[in-house]
Amino acid sequence: MDPNPAVLLDLDGTLVDSVYRHVVAWSAALRARGYDVPDHRIHAGIGMGGDRLLSWWLGREPEDAEELRRDHKRRFLDGVDTLVATAGARELIKDLERREVPFVIATSASPEERGALLEVLGRPELAATDNDEGMISKPAPDLLLAACEELGATPSDATFVGDSPWDGEAARRLGMRFIGVRCGGFGDEALRDGGAFDIVDAPADLVGRL
Amino acid sequence: MDPNPAVLLDLDGTLVDSVYRHVVAWSAALRARGYDVPDHRIHAGIGMGGDRLLSWWLGREPEDAEELRRDHKRRFLDGVDTLVATAGARELIKDLERREVPFVIATSASPEERGALLEVLGRPELAATDNDEGMISKPAPDLLLAACEELGATPSDATFVGDSPWDGEAARRLGMRFIGVRCGGFGDEALRDGGAFDIVDAPADLVGRL
Repeated sequence: MDPNPAVLLDLDGTLVDSVYRHVVAWSAALRARGYDVPDHRIHAGIGMGGDRLLSWWLGREPEDAEELRRDHKRRFLDGVDTLVATAGARELIKDLERREVPFVIATSASPEERGALLEVLGRPELAATDNDEGMISKPAPDLLLAACEELGATPSDATFVGDSPWDGEAARRLGMRFIGVRCGGFGDEALRDGGAFDIVDAPADLVGRL
Repeated sequence: MDPNPAVLLDLDGTLVDSVYRHVVAWSAALRARGYDVPDHRIHAGIGMGGDRLLSWWLGREPEDAEELRRDHKRRFLDGVDTLVATAGARELIKDLERREVPFVIATSASPEERGALLEVLGRPELAATDNDEGMISKPAPDLLLAACEELGATPSDATFVGDSPWDGEAARRLGMRFIGVRCGGFGDEALRDGGAFDIVDAPADLVGRL
């Protein structure tokens, strides 16, 4: 229907079922250093840029921020080989390729995590726009803007598929359509508050529709 | 305000920050045996009786149900010493004791898990009503009815504090007031749909109020 339907796909939590693992990895890293953040608050932060998380949870950037981020990454990557793709993630990508819809994966995951997550998808070669130096991370729209530039698309003609309200907020700032998937465990209310134009269970529900 | 304000407290997820650990333990147990249940669907089931979970997730009780339950329990108990109480859980119990409000912990956790969770609270001696043989598990109201009998309270005069919509459903069937706590990671919408009369972040917000 859209004459130029460019599609941006979030990776972590949207194409790979990874959110709960991130929660538990962050929870363990924080508690090991004596920080007390409830797990549901950890969950609520997932999806914003990794550089923002600690100050969002703790009210300030702690002195041992680097150690905490390293510890989270180690714990997360430790179980990465047992992660699985979300329902229909592989099929959605194949569908977009088959119908020649311009799309790109837009992710703020670190290079190491991104590589591991693309391996879970069985598509390590897929193009992905990531958070370059100088970009402000989600919910700032920089990443989505860079992804649009890569595709030669205008933001208002593009659709972003993501699992967190932070994805929605980034899209909203560009007037971009945001479709929320429930597979990250954010409730419908949070996704609607994040500006979701539509909410579906998983990528499987979007095959043939983007 | 209530002339006979009996209080029932859920344990797992309400007084101890354990829900995300259950999700990851179930997820690992299920995937290790080739079952594919998205993590957010695992989360959505937590809080109903453990005997119901597998058929809710899988559409049928699998042949290896006992092995799955054992594997989940092993994985969950494996990290139980790193669990923490939810915000204000200990204080709420002390507050109820100090004001002599009749209360009891109502839990469908197995004896082993219950013991470990009460240890996390630092109150291994606390009285708890549990799922006896012959009871139907949550969201059936049997457990809450037994807890009321133990306290000599009528359900409509009692308040149940829990973290999941399943808790709310069990209370609703008895005309019992249900207060939802957000610390189990269920969204406000799910807790409201579960019949929550009030929703607060954690037990801390209920100190002096029950």
